[in-house]
Amino acid sequence: MTQALYDNNGRELWSNGDEQTMVRIEAKETEHPNWSIHYLKPEHHDPVPSDIAISRAQPPKDVEQVAREVGVLPEELDPYGRKKAKVSLDVLKRLQHVKNGKYVVVVGITPTPLGEGKSTTSIGLSQALGPHLHKNVFTCLRQPSQGPTFGIKGGAAGGGYSQVIPMEEFNLHLTGDIHAITAANNLLAAAIDARMFHESTQKDEALFNRLCPQNKQGKRPLSAVQKRRLSRLGINGIDDGNLLTPEQRTQFSRLNIDPSTITWNRVIDTNDRFLRGIEIGLGPAEKGHTRRTQFDISVASELMAILALTTSLRDMRERISRIVVGSDVHGKPVTADDIGVTDALTVLMRDTVRPTLMQTLEGTPVFVHAGPFANIAHGASSIIADQIALKLVGENGYVVTEAGFGADIGMEKFFNIKCRYSGLEPSAVVLVSTVRALKMHGGGPPVVPGNPLKHEYTEENLELLEKGCNSNLRKQIENCSMFGVPVVVCVNKFATDTDAELELVVNRALAHGARYAAVSTHWSKGGAGAIQLAHAVVRATTAPGGNFKFLYPLNLSLEEKINIIARKIYGADGVEFSKEALEKLNCYTQQGFGDLPICMAKTQLSLSHDPTKKGAPTSNFIITSFFSLQRTQVDSGLGASLRLPRVNVR
Amino acid sequence: MTQALYDNNGRELWSNGDEQTMVRIEAKETEHPNWSIHYLKPEHHDPVPSDIAISRAQPPKDVEQVAREVGVLPEELDPYGRKKAKVSLDVLKRLQHVKNGKYVVVVGITPTPLGEGKSTTSIGLSQALGPHLHKNVFTCLRQPSQGPTFGIKGGAAGGGYSQVIPMEEFNLHLTGDIHAITAANNLLAAAIDARMFHESTQKDEALFNRLCPQNKQGKRPLSAVQKRRLSRLGINGIDDGNLLTPEQRTQFSRLNIDPSTITWNRVIDTNDRFLRGIEIGLGPAEKGHTRRTQFDISVASELMAILALTTSLRDMRERISRIVVGSDVHGKPVTADDIGVTDALTVLMRDTVRPTLMQTLEGTPVFVHAGPFANIAHGASSIIADQIALKLVGENGYVVTEAGFGADIGMEKFFNIKCRYSGLEPSAVVLVSTVRALKMHGGGPPVVPGNPLKHEYTEENLELLEKGCNSNLRKQIENCSMFGVPVVVCVNKFATDTDAELELVVNRALAHGARYAAVSTHWSKGGAGAIQLAHAVVRATTAPGGNFKFLYPLNLSLEEKINIIARKIYGADGVEFSKEALEKLNCYTQQGFGDLPICMAKTQLSLSHDPTKKGAPTSNFIITSFFSLQRTQVDSGLGASLRLPRVNVR
Repeated sequence: MTQALYDNNGRELWSNGDEQTMVRIEAKETEHPNWSIHYLKPEHHDPVPSDIAISRAQPPKDVEQVAREVGVLPEELDPYGRKKAKVSLDVLKRLQHVKNGKYVVVVGITPTPLGEGKSTTSIGLSQALGPHLHKNVFTCLRQPSQGPTFGIKGGAAGGGYSQVIPMEEFNLHLTGDIHAITAANNLLAAAIDARMFHESTQKDEALFNRLCPQNKQGKRPLSAVQKRRLSRLGINGIDDGNLLTPEQRTQFSRLNIDPSTITWNRVIDTNDRFLRGIEIGLGPAEKGHTRRTQFDISVASELMAILALTTSLRDMRERISRIVVGSDVHGKPVTADDIGVTDALTVLMRDTVRPTLMQTLEGTPVFVHAGPFANIAHGASSIIADQIALKLVGENGYVVTEAGFGADIGMEKFFNIKCRYSGLEPSAVVLVSTVRALKMHGGGPPVVPGNPLKHEYTEENLELLEKGCNSNLRKQIENCSMFGVPVVVCVNKFATDTDAELELVVNRALAHGARYAAVSTHWSKGGAGAIQLAHAVVRATTAPGGNFKFLYPLNLSLEEKINIIARKIYGADGVEFSKEALEKLNCYTQQGFGDLPICMAKTQLSLSHDPTKKGAPTSNFIITSFFSLQRTQVDSGLGASLRLPRVNVR
Repeated sequence: MTQALYDNNGRELWSNGDEQTMVRIEAKETEHPNWSIHYLKPEHHDPVPSDIAISRAQPPKDVEQVAREVGVLPEELDPYGRKKAKVSLDVLKRLQHVKNGKYVVVVGITPTPLGEGKSTTSIGLSQALGPHLHKNVFTCLRQPSQGPTFGIKGGAAGGGYSQVIPMEEFNLHLTGDIHAITAANNLLAAAIDARMFHESTQKDEALFNRLCPQNKQGKRPLSAVQKRRLSRLGINGIDDGNLLTPEQRTQFSRLNIDPSTITWNRVIDTNDRFLRGIEIGLGPAEKGHTRRTQFDISVASELMAILALTTSLRDMRERISRIVVGSDVHGKPVTADDIGVTDALTVLMRDTVRPTLMQTLEGTPVFVHAGPFANIAHGASSIIADQIALKLVGENGYVVTEAGFGADIGMEKFFNIKCRYSGLEPSAVVLVSTVRALKMHGGGPPVVPGNPLKHEYTEENLELLEKGCNSNLRKQIENCSMFGVPVVVCVNKFATDTDAELELVVNRALAHGARYAAVSTHWSKGGAGAIQLAHAVVRATTAPGGNFKFLYPLNLSLEEKINIIARKIYGADGVEFSKEALEKLNCYTQQGFGDLPICMAKTQLSLSHDPTKKGAPTSNFIITSFFSLQRTQVDSGLGASLRLPRVNVR
């Protein structure tokens, strides 16, 4: 029973034997005209070669052909080389009358440190829906960071016979979005320190003269961004800085940033541990204005989150203007617009707003767009890419996207943050699980990257597996179901998994509430290995929807919202806030950010706060404090969610 | 006499009146088939609008059309959007039988802080040679850094009616080369600190196990880069790390970098003063392994210099492998290859090796490629772009390129470093001068950016002007002539310049040895304003060449080579080396880098070391020490020149 599809009565719907029949049945159900698309048929080898060898062995179609096939017009396409291209947001306007396709999000159980194959499953599922089930299908993925790409983890193009190609172009610079974000982030960071330096070394009049110099006609013309700052200070209708009183000039010129409140760090897309804690301003020209700060990885930046959540260039510009970089000495938020860099940041990020078109190994279209990490940020690819893809596939088509880390983190934020801002309702959740990870949750020995797997993982062990199914798999299915969306469990098969093991997972998944469960072999067989999964997804999404709901309403307090996530999703007994955490939450509420959704940050290796606690820990943990709030920031720019990074709990 | 061309007997060859005649004469001289090219005719306005308004008013041709017009094949082109494209080095192989065109380098007299218009002249000259003189012409420029672009200076696309369009695409991310360099540079920097950390916290055996782990078959396979390191240690023919003795394992694993010798800094392409002096490693995980270092601007990095000087991807890889990051505790150089990152850096920089095709406001082709600063690096665009362009224009065509800062810096390095490595012989030098700068050299008041010009600069003042001509202009013409290449002086006309002033500069230029001198109004009139200059360049380059010579042979000692540059080019009486400088020079000589050319770094605002000394200071200064050698590095990667940055002299 290497490949089988089950409904939630445990009845086998379909197995390898009658593939052709099923494909024909499914094809009849489709009324919407399909794309005329040339699928690629990569030659398969056993044993499966390395990812890079597979990628290089299959020449991709010219990206202009891919665009033509999926209905993107030539004037909506900007090729970057021959294998990738940016797609214009004009598609959205042109196709506004078209109904959206089905929206499928791929999530995971709590993973081992090796990962359980969400990206590979997203791609494999798409390769089954397209070439085999003749559906229009788009895969929407995140752009990988060069941090992991040049570390142990490696790239993020999928793997085996379920990949985005060419792998190097996907994993390296792509179309430059992360570099643009890095440049924009660091321009703002430099402007903050330069501003504090000039405010502390210059008198009021000199400072005002610099910001607002007199021209030949004796006037001091004010720019649009300067007028907006005056307006926030309650001063309106003034075009000439000469008309400001000395007090107003001081108010205008001095941001009075409290350095201890700055939450805007510099970023770099390199895994550079020595930049995690640095002291800056040690050069002689900075006259002793040193400051302790840090570099974050670019993909964890607020600008990356903004890109992922924005809906247009104009919207991005407004979110950038609202970015809060810290507070002034009176506790008021200081924004990027106060610093005066809104337009500079927007022009640097101008091209990032368009998603990048690529293709899978079997020639189905892929959007790669935005890449926020799931630990500190919300961990999902862009709203814009999903929106464009949903129009391009049409009412009977499919968009497959992914939420980072385990369902307790990535999926929770996908629903409560991304779907809340996009207004898009997911049609189904695919929950990826592996026998390996479930054995670990059942009490198997630790899985350590670089070390060989222990025998529990390479030999049949139904006892450990069942315990894992009844703890982590059960809880993560429950987490998915809380949002009112049908759950399809995908068992991502590894070579050492036995039939009895696979059958056990399928049975337990159905027993714990999955609508369907399917074993999938897309890594070794490509789309052909995910046909049952694809059928399950098609069936799950043809059931009437409309039950989607958020976990919490926005009008609860920040504390209440955090409490709900911790109790309902993580299974905690409750949250005890440290004094520092409560002060910060009060500050953000007073600053007017109390009605934002919460962007939680915690380990992906456990449902709890402790990466060593596997399965589904419950009464034995309580989230007792947030003691690492220095990276916390109010993402007004993000449009916005309140980020409370790293739920560092005892 | 706003537009006139003079030979070196002061005879007026041509003036506005008989433009048509001259164009016909020149056209007859051309035997090589011309490109069939659609020139753009931007509408001209008076007063001249802002640069960005001019750029936006003229729609560029699709870059695929530009490529077609100049003979680049579709398969040799990778578009990045519709207005810029990378061009494959395959052109060089395909056109290897074609004779190179004429090679013209645009340089400048010692500038005011406002700049005297070298880029604008390069573009204006090209716009005259193409649309007006019907020559095949390519302009080769540097990619601008985002540091100046977001600072007072602004972008580098030229100005007025002599620009590269679209200006935003030129000035912002272009095709991502600088970002790729930044990523590669910082990956090496992170690897250096991580390596030192691991060497200092781990025992020999553990370190060796990490570098060379045992596989399932019990072997320790060695990678290519590891075998190269062993080979440098004199250990050859070993495939399995198990065969190494304990002593060899220690030798292999421990680079023993002396932290005080590290010359490889992190880089960022943002003007961020607070990163000029930093302390890293303050995070708790780094266990107190802190280090004082700095961020440089990306364009001053050695990788940028490597890109500018390389001739192929393979050559770039070899130069990267030879990068010296510092010395070990025994004084031996430690290279990027020793760190093991040669391939990672090469893959990150893979796409940078191809130049980016754009166009001027009048539709002539432009290559933008590499952007090393002229202060710390050598300040010229890439050898590869020049090579490809020289083949594309053909024997009777022209390639116009530029050398940064004054001729004493950029041109000296263009000839002694860039031409030495490329083997290309320049056909003519265009020396750009302005009445404004020459008055400054004649004793005019300081020119300060942001402040209005003093009346000496806006009213006729022949006395100051003549003094400037007889000092700085004379000396810079002499500097150009030392290399045996004909000199054409271009007087870049400003609105306030009087006829008498322009005539004076032309006369003095010819008297001081220029082959031709021409007044040029390309900023306000585009190519039509540079027709005389173009005629002068055509005439200068039709004279038999072959007299090109370097300033010094490579086999002199480093001290002697520095001495020659300081005395002959700067006019110094000599060089006195500090003890520290001599020690470093000795160290580099002992390490085997004594036969490299010198990459000098000094102020561009004076021929001397002191930016306030204008004109042509001589016996009143002597270069007495190099006291800022901490940034000095041996650019073996650079292929290589010895960089002695910042000739900080008393």
